[in-house]
Amino acid sequence: PRSFRIVVLPGDGIGPEVVSQAVRVLELVSSSSSDFDLKLETHDFGGCAIDKTGEPLPPTTLKACQEADAILMGSIGGPKWGVDAKIRPEPGLLALRKTLGLYANIRPANLASESLLEYTPLKPSVAQGVDMIVVRELIGGLYFGTRKEQGVEPDVDTAWDSMIYSVSEVQRITRVAAQIALAADPPLEIHSIDKANVLAASRLWRKVVTETLSKEYPQLKLDHHLVDSAAMLIVASPKRLNGVILTENLFGDILSDQSSVIPGSLGLLPSASLAGAPSAPSADFKPTPGLYEPIHGSAPDIAGKGIANPIGTILSAAMLLRYSLGLEAPAKAIETAVRKVLDTPELGGHGLRTADLGGSIGTTELGDHIIEVL
Amino acid sequence: PRSFRIVVLPGDGIGPEVVSQAVRVLELVSSSSSDFDLKLETHDFGGCAIDKTGEPLPPTTLKACQEADAILMGSIGGPKWGVDAKIRPEPGLLALRKTLGLYANIRPANLASESLLEYTPLKPSVAQGVDMIVVRELIGGLYFGTRKEQGVEPDVDTAWDSMIYSVSEVQRITRVAAQIALAADPPLEIHSIDKANVLAASRLWRKVVTETLSKEYPQLKLDHHLVDSAAMLIVASPKRLNGVILTENLFGDILSDQSSVIPGSLGLLPSASLAGAPSAPSADFKPTPGLYEPIHGSAPDIAGKGIANPIGTILSAAMLLRYSLGLEAPAKAIETAVRKVLDTPELGGHGLRTADLGGSIGTTELGDHIIEVL
Ligand SMILES: CC(C)[C@H](C(=O)O)[C@@H](O)C(=O)O
Ligand SMILES: CC(C)[C@H](C(=O)O)[C@@H](O)C(=O)O
Repeated sequence: PRSFRIVVLPGDGIGPEVVSQAVRVLELVSSSSSDFDLKLETHDFGGCAIDKTGEPLPPTTLKACQEADAILMGSIGGPKWGVDAKIRPEPGLLALRKTLGLYANIRPANLASESLLEYTPLKPSVAQGVDMIVVRELIGGLYFGTRKEQGVEPDVDTAWDSMIYSVSEVQRITRVAAQIALAADPPLEIHSIDKANVLAASRLWRKVVTETLSKEYPQLKLDHHLVDSAAMLIVASPKRLNGVILTENLFGDILSDQSSVIPGSLGLLPSASLAGAPSAPSADFKPTPGLYEPIHGSAPDIAGKGIANPIGTILSAAMLLRYSLGLEAPAKAIETAVRKVLDTPELGGHGLRTADLGGSIGTTELGDHIIEVL
Repeated sequence: PRSFRIVVLPGDGIGPEVVSQAVRVLELVSSSSSDFDLKLETHDFGGCAIDKTGEPLPPTTLKACQEADAILMGSIGGPKWGVDAKIRPEPGLLALRKTLGLYANIRPANLASESLLEYTPLKPSVAQGVDMIVVRELIGGLYFGTRKEQGVEPDVDTAWDSMIYSVSEVQRITRVAAQIALAADPPLEIHSIDKANVLAASRLWRKVVTETLSKEYPQLKLDHHLVDSAAMLIVASPKRLNGVILTENLFGDILSDQSSVIPGSLGLLPSASLAGAPSAPSADFKPTPGLYEPIHGSAPDIAGKGIANPIGTILSAAMLLRYSLGLEAPAKAIETAVRKVLDTPELGGHGLRTADLGGSIGTTELGDHIIEVL
């Protein structure tokens, strides 16, 4: 059987709890197939790594990640390593993204189950049928441009950052968006988001997205929205942005978080950060390196209580199988099992739910149910 | 009586229609008072100015604006002067803001009337009680930093913009936010929004906001949110951001538009852009120059039909009286009249509403009703 190396980074807060359920799922998937074999190894990352080694991304962790076929992460950060701390977890995450070249962040936002409509903050008629995938450029723009801190000469009273994009950076993320749009049947529409009425980087963005798609993927539908107007649409009529939302790093940070509250709980949503277009099964198949994590944070307030929702992490494991390893069948199986469990009536008429969704079952118990259905 | 000069810029699309109703209101207010006198003069601005003179902000218009005590604007832009046009209206607006030093953009988002709850895209329980005022820095940051277009040497394949802030720019907008917070009883909380975990300009922002408020306004409550997390809150539990949302130019562009869809129609909301803190009545009173406009666009699809909602513009005129001219009483009277008209049951049980709110009365007719109540 083909063998894949998967690095597991449980991280901080509820990270270890939710990751352990996703690890059980991956182990089950691995042991039930004679086609492939998943080798999991765990490493320190984030706040816990700062405590142990003085840095959020120790060299051994980085090396393991560089050699891995894919990475499954929990969540990092917490009050102990807060805004005022000298050494913080977030730069470790940014360094990991940059070093591994994870330029494509992919975040679906949809209602995993109709039975969740009661949790969305939107009117059910507005939320029902929302199905978008944010494809965010992840290692360019304001995040990685040159900057100057306040207090630095020549002008100690100013600070600045720069938003820079090159043609090739925009081309490659556009191609990832196109691949994802084409994987659906019928292909998804692409909504490119920018601020081209003000920013030079956005004018480049709009031009390159338009040219790349019309040359290489003329069959795909494309439209453009200004970021302010997209932020309105995501609240007022999100379905108008169904399909793929393609955008640069900072706009993607804002819009993907904004859209992620539509399904009603952050605990449900997965994410992928890829170093290339998703793997397609083929003769000369090679895994696409990627980092997979739930979109929620480390939730220090509920850490250690065994009540966190593991679904976002379990669905991240499904994305890992699909996008990095090209294993569509087990990815689908996991997604189907999750939906089934969410829809199973529990005593009282609700599905089997953790506290974030008004239920009362624990992290491990929900894992048990998903494993069982699988 | 004191005399004030007000420049009126009807602009494009529905601009002239909605502005003419606000002008009627201002004329009524002026003629009913022996304390003050409003002198209104109309000038070309935006697309219509491009058509007449070749530029969106002709020198005569700019000069009139510079000499005015306040400016009332409709809306500018339209397909005729779209993204691909050589000369576009938006740079005229940016130049007007910059030349007049309009650094403080103020945008309330609240439900003018409980009877409008049916139009919000949020669940009524989520939207009810939302009452926020976005205070956006308007002439700094990415909008006005140096930039380089694609195609320009030395690297024709890149484009960049810069986000720059100075200590004094952040101080002055913080003081405006504080004045607005203090004008309410009890004073409003201030929520400062940044991306301090990534951007140097945001770290300066957070430091200066914190220091300015703790030194000069220690009685005000302040907290900080990252922009991605604020974008989630505005959808998921907007009331947690009730009070003043204080933020930089681009984040303010996005968040103010996002929050403006909560009340259910963009047609209802006013805005102010000020060159200083709001005027307070005092012995040595001097008007604060400001530009007032509804937040909606020029809506070319319904222009000329006489069905646009004039309320956003009428409420902008109220803000003009309050913030630029220090005339609180007529400002309040206008706001009360608008609320009363919205709450008046019409045949069929709805208030007197324009089409955007499911009603059937026209722009002028709604103006008539408001004038009558006034
Ligand atoms: C932790 C932070 C630097 C990060 C980002 O802004 O990219 C986070 O918000 C995310 O979206 O993964
Ligand atoms: C027209 C555009 C340049 C402008 C902006 O981005 O500031 C508009 O969106 C606004 O918010 O007034």
